[in-house]
Amino acid sequence: MRDWTKQRTERTARLKGAMPLATGKIVKAEQVTELLGHLIKSGDRVCLEGDNQKQADFLARCLTQVDPAAIHDLHIVQSGLVLTEHLDLFRLGIARKLDFSYSGPQSGAIARALDQGKIELGAIHTYIELFARYSVDLTPNVALIAAVSADREGNLYTGPNTEDTPTIVEATAFKSGIVIAQVNEIVDKVPRVDIPGDQIDFVVEAPEPFYVEPLFTRDPGAVTESQILMAMMALKGIYAEYQPKRLNHGIGFATAAIELLLPTFGEKLGLRGKVATHWALNPHPTLIPAIESGWVEQIHCFGSEVGMDQYMSARPDIYFIGKDGTLRSNRLLCQNAGLYASDMFIGSTLQIDLAGNSSTVTPDRIAGFGGAPNMGSDAHGRRHVSDAWLKAGREAAGHSGLLVRGRKLVVQMVETFGEGMKPAFVEELDSIALAKKLGMELAPVMIFGDDVTHIITEEGIANLLLCRNADEVEQAIRGVAGYTPVGMARDRVRVEELRARGVIRRPEDLDIEPLEASRNLLAARSIRDLVTWSGGLYVPPSKFRNW
Amino acid sequence: MRDWTKQRTERTARLKGAMPLATGKIVKAEQVTELLGHLIKSGDRVCLEGDNQKQADFLARCLTQVDPAAIHDLHIVQSGLVLTEHLDLFRLGIARKLDFSYSGPQSGAIARALDQGKIELGAIHTYIELFARYSVDLTPNVALIAAVSADREGNLYTGPNTEDTPTIVEATAFKSGIVIAQVNEIVDKVPRVDIPGDQIDFVVEAPEPFYVEPLFTRDPGAVTESQILMAMMALKGIYAEYQPKRLNHGIGFATAAIELLLPTFGEKLGLRGKVATHWALNPHPTLIPAIESGWVEQIHCFGSEVGMDQYMSARPDIYFIGKDGTLRSNRLLCQNAGLYASDMFIGSTLQIDLAGNSSTVTPDRIAGFGGAPNMGSDAHGRRHVSDAWLKAGREAAGHSGLLVRGRKLVVQMVETFGEGMKPAFVEELDSIALAKKLGMELAPVMIFGDDVTHIITEEGIANLLLCRNADEVEQAIRGVAGYTPVGMARDRVRVEELRARGVIRRPEDLDIEPLEASRNLLAARSIRDLVTWSGGLYVPPSKFRNW
Repeated sequence: MRDWTKQRTERTARLKGAMPLATGKIVKAEQVTELLGHLIKSGDRVCLEGDNQKQADFLARCLTQVDPAAIHDLHIVQSGLVLTEHLDLFRLGIARKLDFSYSGPQSGAIARALDQGKIELGAIHTYIELFARYSVDLTPNVALIAAVSADREGNLYTGPNTEDTPTIVEATAFKSGIVIAQVNEIVDKVPRVDIPGDQIDFVVEAPEPFYVEPLFTRDPGAVTESQILMAMMALKGIYAEYQPKRLNHGIGFATAAIELLLPTFGEKLGLRGKVATHWALNPHPTLIPAIESGWVEQIHCFGSEVGMDQYMSARPDIYFIGKDGTLRSNRLLCQNAGLYASDMFIGSTLQIDLAGNSSTVTPDRIAGFGGAPNMGSDAHGRRHVSDAWLKAGREAAGHSGLLVRGRKLVVQMVETFGEGMKPAFVEELDSIALAKKLGMELAPVMIFGDDVTHIITEEGIANLLLCRNADEVEQAIRGVAGYTPVGMARDRVRVEELRARGVIRRPEDLDIEPLEASRNLLAARSIRDLVTWSGGLYVPPSKFRNW
Repeated sequence: MRDWTKQRTERTARLKGAMPLATGKIVKAEQVTELLGHLIKSGDRVCLEGDNQKQADFLARCLTQVDPAAIHDLHIVQSGLVLTEHLDLFRLGIARKLDFSYSGPQSGAIARALDQGKIELGAIHTYIELFARYSVDLTPNVALIAAVSADREGNLYTGPNTEDTPTIVEATAFKSGIVIAQVNEIVDKVPRVDIPGDQIDFVVEAPEPFYVEPLFTRDPGAVTESQILMAMMALKGIYAEYQPKRLNHGIGFATAAIELLLPTFGEKLGLRGKVATHWALNPHPTLIPAIESGWVEQIHCFGSEVGMDQYMSARPDIYFIGKDGTLRSNRLLCQNAGLYASDMFIGSTLQIDLAGNSSTVTPDRIAGFGGAPNMGSDAHGRRHVSDAWLKAGREAAGHSGLLVRGRKLVVQMVETFGEGMKPAFVEELDSIALAKKLGMELAPVMIFGDDVTHIITEEGIANLLLCRNADEVEQAIRGVAGYTPVGMARDRVRVEELRARGVIRRPEDLDIEPLEASRNLLAARSIRDLVTWSGGLYVPPSKFRNW
């Protein structure tokens, strides 16, 4: 007779060892490392909640303090690997294998650790893909998560930064796993229940509130005129042409510029109410002027943003707000919204090759891609139509018809020369070299060229939907690549042919005068302006205050 | 000054009208219709929980009893439209617009109601797509849901059939909507909290337990030898070749035959442990012999299945089971698992055209597609590799390389002649005529040809990955279309060329002797055999018992 309850028996045994350290579900901060020693075994799959923003930083610190002789070869399965402690687990030999989505500040450290053989890399996922694997073949044995508060039954209040928590906990708790939550405070009654207590095994009040990073705040003061020019082209050449109502903006100054131009240049184009009404979006402060000007109907958020909570709480008609009065975010739901219910994704990248493949990976920086591969991909399972989606699909097909699907607009905005005057356009992505070095079977690509519909640079817009073969794609890309070597190597005759066909459009083709691309067009020119627009409800973090 | 809290004010006003009818959150069954009169307004978006299996049938009945003069033009946004009451809402003029995913038993009635102009059709979605729109532009104003039990605070226990409930409730409750739950019983303490009470406004104990349909039970006694032959070809020509470990099986007897052949023919092929170890799957009773024979490591479920609960409860190493001891299903998570963490989808269809497009829609039956468009589509955002996925992608590309993505295997199994000897292969899908009649811009297609990788009939396997143009696809399809008019019109020379290239494979090319395709190969030949395999834990519904 096979034993079909091994996982449950294992769970019970671990809990038994840990019980003496807890009063009910409550554990003291100073006993957490010892607790983990009972609850985690070598080889376990562990999710140490590192979201895009919220971090279970106290539990991370405790996990680095376990004895590597006793606990080793952990398989870390979590979306964000952003704290030094996350890397320490590998350096100390506690963890060995890694499946993740996003690193950001640790992208250099991950590259070095891979190089030194300290990390065995599973894959770099897009968020929702990693969550999918939580249900299938990467179910965590132990989840170490973060919440704002808990009651004594373990009911959790995650507040505005709910993010990944429900998805992590559901997979772990219902597969005989163990869930430990660090909270900022233990209270008699939580403001609302985001995670039911019966899915939580242990709760610890952490010495400090969990760490959260303002990732989506862009200072309007740093938006350049080149970015404004690109934003004007985007609005006139894409928003006005396709009229996407439901969309996502990626991170970056170029998309921030679009947000800040909606109430000015966008208004002049008569686009209010016709485009950008429904969003899957992080709470970008730069969208405040557009919201206040009546452009936006509804926004669903992946997570929260430092300083935005009070503003969002006062705008429940726009944001998803709980009965406690604060935002409810949910990364899985919002990524799904971006995949299946959005007509456009527009974002930035670091490198684009001649086929339109893009990547933010370089041999010495493995940043991960977060949500971009998902948001920036066409959902082949989509069956509902919208004008924007149909128009894009018909341009790609070259004809219409009852069997011609639409396409999601996937727009990459990039200045031809990036940081340190590095060309954004390359003959071969750096990630190819990385893949060779690490023996990967597929190079880490953020968005594949076959999903990209438009590339915008300060030189113009390349519409890849209208390209009929790989050569045309190459020349369309060269044709907007400016003075980079890729741009200089263009075939001028063919580029002009593409321009005549509307595949490439210059600012003048769109009746945009580059000299008009001035900072005066921005609805807000500083963080302080954003605060004013918000009626004082937006409370920027101190590092963004210079007054 | 704009009012940013209109939705909340509206909610408060409605609740105020309804309050006198409730004691706390509890409402008596006989007062529900009156309650709905206070809580629902004309034009509201309403989700009347109709999942794939579980039905809020009592609330549906109550909603049909409101006064259409007072409440009309509702916009119904729900995944399943399967009860006669769902259609009554349109016939009575209470509802007007419809966005849904699946109908099943009401597919004829929906077609007639559309014809008569009683229903204004939004779109036929795949489940996860409709859920995505709950976050963006189809957020319900009111959700009428079903659970097993509730406590007096409104905490809900959804039990094994959790299905869509968390997704519906989250979208509604956090956007100032109203949530009403029918439960089988009100208890002092629920066995586990699936939905926190603060997301629920009202609870009613329904006169009868909610309706749930056994949708995924296939009697092994009804599996034909032709289906067994197709299953043998699938196992030898696809499972053995690509070795997909993570997969989904659609509904139908052909896939049930595969499940029943795993412990016999599959064992002989040496595939145990090499294929089909991790599943995103409804609880198919026909998988019991494979589970008991040690083929399966883990299964995540969309919903439950009547009769399977006790068996699953006793197999927590395989299924996701709560601390209360019963299954936790979740349609959103499982659909996402099927999209992003599965290497293969294999299912059936009604019609296939010459480009491989398939549909279950005919002019007089609009069945919807449920999860098939999602499960049967290639996720372009996927970034992790598997051998099966890479092999499929490289076959499609005709070469390998560091920028060659993989492909999900999407296999359609179909007998050349279906019910009533109707040919499964057609020059033009019936859904084209329907689209023309209804003025749709895109015909309702279940899976588009560009996502299909293989078609299996009793005549052979067509591998569309190896086809290099539309003509080859057409001849590959004709080449397995048997004696249907489409099959008879094949170009015999080109079909033999495709066969020589391995694009088409006949049973003899796979060393399968059609005469060996016998019912003796089935690991279980009756429902009773399944009960025996389960050690008496599977308790089939009475309509499947003939002993």
